[in-house]
Amino acid sequence: MSVAGFSFRLRAADGAARAGVVSTPHGEFETPAFMPVGTLASVKGLTPLQVRETGARIVLANAYHLSLRPGEDVVEALGGLHSFMGWDGPILTDSGGFQVFSLSPINRVDDEGVLFRSHLDGAEVFITPERAMEIQRRLGADIVMAFDECPPPLAPRPVVQKAVERTLLWAERCLDAPRAEGAALFGIVQGGVYRDLRLGCAERLSSMGFDGYAVGGLGIGEGAEGTAEMTALTASALPEDRPRYLMGLGRPEDIVRAVGAGVDMFDCVVPTRNARNAMLFTPNGPMRMRNARYARDERPVMEDCDCYTCRNFTRAYLRHLYVAGEMLAGVLGSIHNLRFYQRLVADCRRAVLEGRFERFAADFLENCSPKGTESAK
Amino acid sequence: MSVAGFSFRLRAADGAARAGVVSTPHGEFETPAFMPVGTLASVKGLTPLQVRETGARIVLANAYHLSLRPGEDVVEALGGLHSFMGWDGPILTDSGGFQVFSLSPINRVDDEGVLFRSHLDGAEVFITPERAMEIQRRLGADIVMAFDECPPPLAPRPVVQKAVERTLLWAERCLDAPRAEGAALFGIVQGGVYRDLRLGCAERLSSMGFDGYAVGGLGIGEGAEGTAEMTALTASALPEDRPRYLMGLGRPEDIVRAVGAGVDMFDCVVPTRNARNAMLFTPNGPMRMRNARYARDERPVMEDCDCYTCRNFTRAYLRHLYVAGEMLAGVLGSIHNLRFYQRLVADCRRAVLEGRFERFAADFLENCSPKGTESAK
Repeated sequence: MSVAGFSFRLRAADGAARAGVVSTPHGEFETPAFMPVGTLASVKGLTPLQVRETGARIVLANAYHLSLRPGEDVVEALGGLHSFMGWDGPILTDSGGFQVFSLSPINRVDDEGVLFRSHLDGAEVFITPERAMEIQRRLGADIVMAFDECPPPLAPRPVVQKAVERTLLWAERCLDAPRAEGAALFGIVQGGVYRDLRLGCAERLSSMGFDGYAVGGLGIGEGAEGTAEMTALTASALPEDRPRYLMGLGRPEDIVRAVGAGVDMFDCVVPTRNARNAMLFTPNGPMRMRNARYARDERPVMEDCDCYTCRNFTRAYLRHLYVAGEMLAGVLGSIHNLRFYQRLVADCRRAVLEGRFERFAADFLENCSPKGTESAK
Repeated sequence: MSVAGFSFRLRAADGAARAGVVSTPHGEFETPAFMPVGTLASVKGLTPLQVRETGARIVLANAYHLSLRPGEDVVEALGGLHSFMGWDGPILTDSGGFQVFSLSPINRVDDEGVLFRSHLDGAEVFITPERAMEIQRRLGADIVMAFDECPPPLAPRPVVQKAVERTLLWAERCLDAPRAEGAALFGIVQGGVYRDLRLGCAERLSSMGFDGYAVGGLGIGEGAEGTAEMTALTASALPEDRPRYLMGLGRPEDIVRAVGAGVDMFDCVVPTRNARNAMLFTPNGPMRMRNARYARDERPVMEDCDCYTCRNFTRAYLRHLYVAGEMLAGVLGSIHNLRFYQRLVADCRRAVLEGRFERFAADFLENCSPKGTESAK
C-alpha cells in the first residue's frame, strides 16, 4: 500500500539485480537511479538545466541543512523545494539523521529526540521524528526519509542495538506524522556491522509498510567489504515490491556491487566533490586532472563520453582550469562525473533488462581500478 | 587599410555615439559591444554556451596571464585559443601591458622592454613588444593589442610623458611584428590625465594606421569625471572609420557615458566579479543580494529580464545561495550581470540607430544610482 502518486514497478530482475520505474508526483525515474546531491537545494556549481542534461531525473536535498539555512519556512513560503530550486522533477529529502549524528556536538539523545548544537552557529536544536517530518512536509519533496539514529557501524554492539531500537521507535512515529500530499516515506535500516541487528531492523521496518526502504549507516569506516556484505544482507531482507536505497554511497564500483545486491537508488557526493578536487571518472578508474601528463593532451576525458565537457573540451584545457583554480573546472568536471554516474546506472539497468548483469558487473569491476578513489559520504 | 578578414562598418551615428559592425575571421559582432572577461581562457564559472546565451559575441582573454599559465605554446599546440577554450566566436587578447605594470614588481623598464617578476612564482620575465606580439600570434585571437607602458594616470607629467613616448615606440614595433592570419591590431592611447599627452598620443597612433584604437590607462584612480573627460577627449581624436575600445571599464554608467563619447567596445570584470560578490545589476542600481530584505522575496532580480537566472529563480533563492556560499550563486549572478551588460549595449545601439541616444543616456543615468557600485579593472 503506497501513497497515491507514488509507485514502484519492477520491470526485470537478473539474479538479485533489478530494473524498475518509480513514479512520483513530479514524474517518473528509472532504476537503478543515481541522485545528484543538492544538500542546500543546489547541486554545487550546476544549474538545474545542466543537472538534467547529465541524465539525472531525481535529485537529493537535505532537510537538516535546509532547516538551519534558509529555514523550511522560507522554502515553504517560496512554494516548496521544487519551485525554490527550479527543479521540476522528483526530489528526495534526507531527514538529517546522518548529519545530526556526524556533524554536530550531541548534547543528549533519548527516545524523544536529539538535542544538539547547530554546526553553523552553535545554537541548540532539538529534533524529534515529528519535527524531522514537519521540516520535510514543509519542504515538499516527493520522497521523504524517516528520522533515524545513525551510529558508527563499528560502534560496540550495545550502542548499535540501542540505535536500532530507537530507529524503529522513531520509524513508527514518522509513519504517524503528516506528510505533503503524495509524498512517499522510506524507512531506514540501521544495525552497523551486526548481521542479526541489520536483519531484525529490516524485518521490523518491513512489517510497518513503508513506501521504500533505505540501507543507512554504512560507508563510515566499515570498509568496502563490510559495506558490500551489509548492503547485500539488508537488501535481501527487504520487500521485493518496494524500492531500496543505499544512502550516501559510493564510488562507481560500490554502486555496481550494490545493484548486484538488489539496490535500486543511490546518492553520493563523490562525483561532484571529486570533480571539484580534479578527480574525474572513467571506466578505467579515476583521472587526476592536475597531473602534468595531461598538459598537452588533446583528447577528451573519455573518448566515448557524450557529456558537454567531453564533447567540447580537451584534457589539456581541463588541466589548465584546475591548475589555475578556475571555477569552471569544478563545473565542467561535475558535469562529466555526474554524466558518468548516470551512464553507469543506465548501463546497469540495460544489463539487467538483457539478463547479463553478472557479466557486466564482472567486466566493470575488473576494469576500474579502485586505487586512488575514496569513498565519501 | 585593415587586414583581410577584419573590418569595421559604421552603421549610424547620433552625436558622438555610434552603432557599427565589426567583422573578424571568427564572425561579426555589433557595436557598441561588451566583451566578457575570460582572463585565463575562461569566463569565471560559465560555460561558453552560457556566455553565448547572455548575448555576448566576443570575449576577452589575457596574453600575459596565459603566457605564464598554461603557456602560449600549450594553447598553440592545442589549436589556438578558440579551440582551447571552446569559443568559436571572435576573441580579443589584451597584450598584458596593464597587468605587467599593475601586478608585478618591476625590475627595469627601458625602451627595449620590461623586466619584471611573475606574480605567480616570482620568476624573472622579460617582455618586449615583439614578445607580446609573439604570444598573441601563438594564442591566435582575432584582435590583438599593442604592448604599451601603462602608467598610473595621476603620475607626474614627466613619468606619463615618458610612458607615452615608449608606448608610441613600441606601437611601431608591434605593427612590424608577425601576426596570426587575419588578426587585427589595435593601438593603445596612453597619456594619463594630461590632455595634450592624450591628444598627441592619439594623433601619432592614428597616423600609424592601426585596425582599431584603445583608450588605455584609465579607471585607476582618476575618478569618474576624469575617466569620462579623458575618454571623450581621446575618442574625439581617433579616426572615425576604426573601432574604439575603452579598456577595462566599467560600471554601467561608465559605459553609457563612453558610448556617448564615441566608444564602440568595452570589457570589464565588474559584471562577473560583482556577481561573485553578490552584487547584481538592475536599471535602478545594484542590488546586494545577501541583504536580509530578499529572504522571502519571490520576484526575480529584474522583472523584465530575459536571462536564465531571472526566468527561473527568485531573489530569495539567490540570497540563500549567496548566504550559504554555494558556487551556483556566482554562476547565476554572472549570467544575470552579463545579460544586463549585453542588454545595456544593445539598448545603446538601438538608441543610436533611432537617433535618440542623448535622451536614452540621460534617462539611464538618472535612474541608476551610482551609490554602492565600484569601478574596478
